[in-house]
Amino acid sequence: MEHFDLMKRLQQKNSQKIILLVLDGVGGIPMHAGSQTALETAATPNMDKLAAAGALGQLISIRPGITPGSGPAHLSLFGYDPVEYEVGRGVLSSNGVGLKVNFGDIACRANFCTVDTNGLITDRRAGRISSDVAQPLCERLNTIEIPGIEVEVKLVKEYRFTVVIRGEGLEADIEDTDPQTVGKAPLSATARSAGSEKAADCFNSWLAKACELLKDEPQANACTLRGFSTDPGFPTMTDVFGLNPACIAVYPMYKGVSALVGMDVKSFNGDQPSDEFAAAERYWDAHDFFFIHIKKTDSYGEDGNFDGKVHVIESVDAALPQLMALKPDAIAITGDHSTPCKMKSHSWHPIPLLIWSPEMIRPDDQNTFGETSCAHGNLGTFHATELMPMLLAHTNKLKKFGA
Amino acid sequence: MEHFDLMKRLQQKNSQKIILLVLDGVGGIPMHAGSQTALETAATPNMDKLAAAGALGQLISIRPGITPGSGPAHLSLFGYDPVEYEVGRGVLSSNGVGLKVNFGDIACRANFCTVDTNGLITDRRAGRISSDVAQPLCERLNTIEIPGIEVEVKLVKEYRFTVVIRGEGLEADIEDTDPQTVGKAPLSATARSAGSEKAADCFNSWLAKACELLKDEPQANACTLRGFSTDPGFPTMTDVFGLNPACIAVYPMYKGVSALVGMDVKSFNGDQPSDEFAAAERYWDAHDFFFIHIKKTDSYGEDGNFDGKVHVIESVDAALPQLMALKPDAIAITGDHSTPCKMKSHSWHPIPLLIWSPEMIRPDDQNTFGETSCAHGNLGTFHATELMPMLLAHTNKLKKFGA
Repeated sequence: MEHFDLMKRLQQKNSQKIILLVLDGVGGIPMHAGSQTALETAATPNMDKLAAAGALGQLISIRPGITPGSGPAHLSLFGYDPVEYEVGRGVLSSNGVGLKVNFGDIACRANFCTVDTNGLITDRRAGRISSDVAQPLCERLNTIEIPGIEVEVKLVKEYRFTVVIRGEGLEADIEDTDPQTVGKAPLSATARSAGSEKAADCFNSWLAKACELLKDEPQANACTLRGFSTDPGFPTMTDVFGLNPACIAVYPMYKGVSALVGMDVKSFNGDQPSDEFAAAERYWDAHDFFFIHIKKTDSYGEDGNFDGKVHVIESVDAALPQLMALKPDAIAITGDHSTPCKMKSHSWHPIPLLIWSPEMIRPDDQNTFGETSCAHGNLGTFHATELMPMLLAHTNKLKKFGA
Repeated sequence: MEHFDLMKRLQQKNSQKIILLVLDGVGGIPMHAGSQTALETAATPNMDKLAAAGALGQLISIRPGITPGSGPAHLSLFGYDPVEYEVGRGVLSSNGVGLKVNFGDIACRANFCTVDTNGLITDRRAGRISSDVAQPLCERLNTIEIPGIEVEVKLVKEYRFTVVIRGEGLEADIEDTDPQTVGKAPLSATARSAGSEKAADCFNSWLAKACELLKDEPQANACTLRGFSTDPGFPTMTDVFGLNPACIAVYPMYKGVSALVGMDVKSFNGDQPSDEFAAAERYWDAHDFFFIHIKKTDSYGEDGNFDGKVHVIESVDAALPQLMALKPDAIAITGDHSTPCKMKSHSWHPIPLLIWSPEMIRPDDQNTFGETSCAHGNLGTFHATELMPMLLAHTNKLKKFGA
């Protein structure tokens, strides 16, 4: 809170523009001793040029040694300490697919699953059914009615969907129904506090009707619910930083977390870096802050596909001149966390960071964008929530503290 | 507070002596791509010798990206987090010219200004009149009497002066009277809370009498008041660190902030680095901590005078052997903030730091004192409030934590 109080007090508006380009999970570790990371292996002449003229450093997303999930990792980049600003998975997923979760509405993330004749789970993701298969099932589930309650269901992707309920007296303090293992039955929605009993009852009624509607499906014949949550009511980036921010992202999750902090989530065609940069160009005049999210670096990291990750980084670099042609007054290129291909998962390793601005940067003596060069950069290693003040500083959007 | 509790618990006194040599605004950025900063350009053989034998790092004054004012920047160097330890400009300025502000006294910074026949401000600094012109005006204003209240006026420099009122039931929660623009009349002093109404009334009475006394002046025919504040009652550096500290500074502001944390503010003749170092020599036996403040690095930075800044740094370096001849047990050479000539203003860029001590330093592999070498130094980048513990450590003034 102290941090936000400072930002509110010092913010000053002007027309300068900031780009925050996030290559999801960009940081890594070498696949074997003596080799380089994916970022270091990738040929990135454009990023290297910015690195030479700009300054490098490393970000800590949550705390040293803590591996972040995607939601908290992005909140941290946006300046919101995720230890203080917690948000449920249900809200993130729902916002991401355009289901508005107002304060008092309860959202959850749902997974289709497969149960045997005894009702015990045999596949927690229903054979990872495709979106084409899941879409009509979601439409069927969207016909369920609960008296006095508005219910809405929407597909996220493949076996994942969200459920939002709206009505009076609903609270979200409810246990997940996914038993986290096969061989057990899905759990009931159980309220952890008295105020949440009404909402838990609603979800249990809904689950009974859903299982009835799904019972003859070959794979997706049941479902589990998790991440019950309501709008956490965060201050917006406009409140805190005085910005008019836009989100350019392909995947729902990232649109969702951007909407939570008050970004204007943009629609556009295509899913390549160049499509996203074209969207930034289209909306350039209307905003002063652009969050641009590249997903595939993380996907390949999670798959352990080193060459794939290298290739995505190179494709972002190849498209970068298109973005720089917009003449941003400051740009940060970084990740939300590291996703080493060797680990096939998110990790706690510090996140490589590059900041460039045409006038006010203090350059260091590093000339490439990579993990080791960033560790030697003059920005040092700092908490991701401090990145926003740094970008505001480089665009003259913060007044002096004290006389 | 936790920080101070630790310091109080661990402090141990001895006869070792610390010098904190502050080159105000010493940090910078290159004037153009590929060039060096003023500190890197300056020929500093003596500092480089200390850099080679000592250790380098970077300080963050307030928070990353936050540009500090002079008062907060110095409090931070003295170990007082300025976000927690806030102090008004009135108190700083008054202490700086030797007007004591006790708790319950209200001080403000005042500026002479010029108003037209309609009472609208035409020059917020009264043509920047000289101290010679302002001094008799301040003496005239010092004759103003307010029933039941003690009032004192003192010149700071040129068009700047301070007013302190002393009496019962005074509080400082009062809006500035400077409208911050020409073409408007000076504002009345307005209390922001009920407890401050009496003090606001006093200042309004004073302002009415002051404008009457000044009305026939050609330039300084009115004044504005700002930074209403009382003694914040900070713990002293003696309380917190167990030190007997001395301040050697030329400019009032820096004497003021030193007095606030309990330093003994020394008088001496001259305003050159060698004069300040001679003062340190004179008072060497009486104190164990010497804050020595060099102002001109910042002044040239604010003027955008790169060569001037280089020259001041070189003059400090040339005089440094005189200081080192005192055989300090630890010395830190740093700034309170950066003042890049290119920006002509304070900035948020980290502050170069050099620490040397004859016995307990862990040296790094850097051999010059500059922004890039400091970014590579082994002290890393840390918050300015941690500098005091580092200096106490290098002079064996902190006990072990735990058995």
